[in-house]
Amino acid sequence: MGLIVQKFGGTSVANVERILNVAACVKEETERGNNVVVVVSAMGKSTDQLVGLAKEISPQPNKREMDMLLSTGEQVTISLLSMAINQQGLNAVSFTGWQAGIVTEPVHGNARISKINTEAIQTQLSDGKVVIVAGFQGVTEEGEITTLGRGGSDTTAVALAAALKADKCDIYTDVTGVFTTDPRYVKSARKLLSVSYDEMLELANLGAGVLHPRAVEFAKNYQVQLEVRSSMEKIVGTVIEGEATMEQNLVVRGVAFEDEITKVTVLGLSNSLTSLSTIFTTLAQNHLNVDIIIQSTTEGGSANLSFSIHTNDLLETLKVLEDNKEVLGYEQLDAENKLAKVSIVGSGMISNPGVAAKMFEVLAANNIQIKMVSTSEIKVSAVVEEKQMLKAVEALHAAFELSK
Amino acid sequence: MGLIVQKFGGTSVANVERILNVAACVKEETERGNNVVVVVSAMGKSTDQLVGLAKEISPQPNKREMDMLLSTGEQVTISLLSMAINQQGLNAVSFTGWQAGIVTEPVHGNARISKINTEAIQTQLSDGKVVIVAGFQGVTEEGEITTLGRGGSDTTAVALAAALKADKCDIYTDVTGVFTTDPRYVKSARKLLSVSYDEMLELANLGAGVLHPRAVEFAKNYQVQLEVRSSMEKIVGTVIEGEATMEQNLVVRGVAFEDEITKVTVLGLSNSLTSLSTIFTTLAQNHLNVDIIIQSTTEGGSANLSFSIHTNDLLETLKVLEDNKEVLGYEQLDAENKLAKVSIVGSGMISNPGVAAKMFEVLAANNIQIKMVSTSEIKVSAVVEEKQMLKAVEALHAAFELSK
Repeated sequence: MGLIVQKFGGTSVANVERILNVAACVKEETERGNNVVVVVSAMGKSTDQLVGLAKEISPQPNKREMDMLLSTGEQVTISLLSMAINQQGLNAVSFTGWQAGIVTEPVHGNARISKINTEAIQTQLSDGKVVIVAGFQGVTEEGEITTLGRGGSDTTAVALAAALKADKCDIYTDVTGVFTTDPRYVKSARKLLSVSYDEMLELANLGAGVLHPRAVEFAKNYQVQLEVRSSMEKIVGTVIEGEATMEQNLVVRGVAFEDEITKVTVLGLSNSLTSLSTIFTTLAQNHLNVDIIIQSTTEGGSANLSFSIHTNDLLETLKVLEDNKEVLGYEQLDAENKLAKVSIVGSGMISNPGVAAKMFEVLAANNIQIKMVSTSEIKVSAVVEEKQMLKAVEALHAAFELSK
Repeated sequence: MGLIVQKFGGTSVANVERILNVAACVKEETERGNNVVVVVSAMGKSTDQLVGLAKEISPQPNKREMDMLLSTGEQVTISLLSMAINQQGLNAVSFTGWQAGIVTEPVHGNARISKINTEAIQTQLSDGKVVIVAGFQGVTEEGEITTLGRGGSDTTAVALAAALKADKCDIYTDVTGVFTTDPRYVKSARKLLSVSYDEMLELANLGAGVLHPRAVEFAKNYQVQLEVRSSMEKIVGTVIEGEATMEQNLVVRGVAFEDEITKVTVLGLSNSLTSLSTIFTTLAQNHLNVDIIIQSTTEGGSANLSFSIHTNDLLETLKVLEDNKEVLGYEQLDAENKLAKVSIVGSGMISNPGVAAKMFEVLAANNIQIKMVSTSEIKVSAVVEEKQMLKAVEALHAAFELSK
């Protein structure tokens, strides 16, 4: 008898009909003789509705209270799904984050899981029950409700799979797997049968929305076998594991993209040696994620620094920088909105030094200006204007022959 | 510096505008130099919406999961109200039932509070914070989420006031106080400036919807001074305390009424001596509340038994009786729906034996048939047909000169 963790996202539980569909999906898994732990997100747009209510009350709602508010979304889903499964004659029991023993660091809005006390879940599994856990949420050692930030339900599922030593973690979503690029925007996108953790990590980090990067990290660290698959269509998905079965020895395996990027520039940093670390330490302490970083030194000896962030974090980033202006010692701040990041990813890149050059060539040939560049061993990212994003993706997808 | 517990019901927090109004009301109390604990219900019709979702999934949803679902309603309100109060420059912190230390017996849907661990609230009050607590919910010793049943938020407020030794518990509602009868239906209804716990207990038990009877019981037992007042209009309400200041030496102080009453009849009970206690023990174990009970013995020696319940409990009551038919030893079950209960209440009744007779006389003069009768020291109740309920109320209100 195996143990499977299933995760269903917001679209898969958007209404009563879909929740009943999920219940059927859970039942099938139990009929294959497996114990099942199910992790669910909030129903469809319910999180957006809650955020809307909060914004009506306060332009910058208290973060602790925001977690208190948003965590109700998943709690609604777990109870309804449990009713649906009970209604089918199985025994199910739902757990909020705190009931499931998901302990996080004491941070609101973007907490990391610090440990999982699995006793309560194990007891219910031993009793033959299906255990339904609210994704996206946890509790601090002090009993404060926290949320895990964007895509946190994926992280909950993988962390539970790791803690419970599950045989597999199935991520059910509204797409049938991981594609060479987003099939909603690029028709020639092709589904991959398997990708490695590292490739998926880059794809996820780069905005391929099917899976949260932290979830992939967790899966890699604890060697949890993942499968991304459709909750609507019963077809094989994409397996994510240690060593991907290479379908073809492709250099580039996918093109990822992400909009709502803002480039922040700090001009005239007087003492670049210490101020650089001070800036990013300060931003990190405020839980502001910085992506690409570029530094240049001017003739006078001072430095200019640019970095990219999610546009949502702009106001808070500027506030942190302004509050620390004296310590940081810069002259001026600048921000450029409406940017996007386009990236090519593939393990094969390591041994193919010409890949980045080819990417820049393709973008230039399409009159797409590159604002920032970042590279790692298995990916190259370019920040471009948001309005040119899809054009860039299509050109790269074609140039690297990903639809074949 | 005093400590005030304020309770706001669903209508008072039905939308963002009203939540902001409640925040202002809380701020005013703090400006009078008091510490404040606020208890809130779910927003307006949100509980009904959640129940609707559950019923779409299952005709008889699992009770544990129902509590899991419904408890999200108050959690939404506490977080939004806390944001609103923080936005006003005060420090507020919200607590769910389990965070507030509200421990209940292990029953779902209708749990009683067994104790309140006030440490967490006390700590926040000492820090000068406004503490906002989710009404209607608690947690068992085993960490299961429970709800307190109808009007449970009142109970939460009074229990907290008792546990925290608050100076006063203000119940803010959509009416301006306790009336001689429901002013929505009877225009000549008059607001009472004060009533005693016992009178309020009877009024509350008899369906005067402003205050939950359990809350009044709690208040009486712990001598918590209550005031029922309006969240919209800034006028004095009705004070409920040990010895009511008698405005006039009225024999009858109010007329209460309640619809959706069902009369259940058990025919041909073979051994009435033991079966009577067995029936009501069994119903109580299933948390089914029985109100008026009438027993009559037939010529053959067997007995007939009638009792009244809330119509919502009918299916479950019949199921419990049928499941135990052999043990109980009866012949037949019968149920009569669409009934209502009309009651007159007043401490002065004790020394006025003619009150019940006058009530029956008034009802008879209005061609209203009495189906069941029940009396206590300070009230007389009559079960009548639902369609005659308001006619009975108006006739009694006039006959006992309550509008003067």
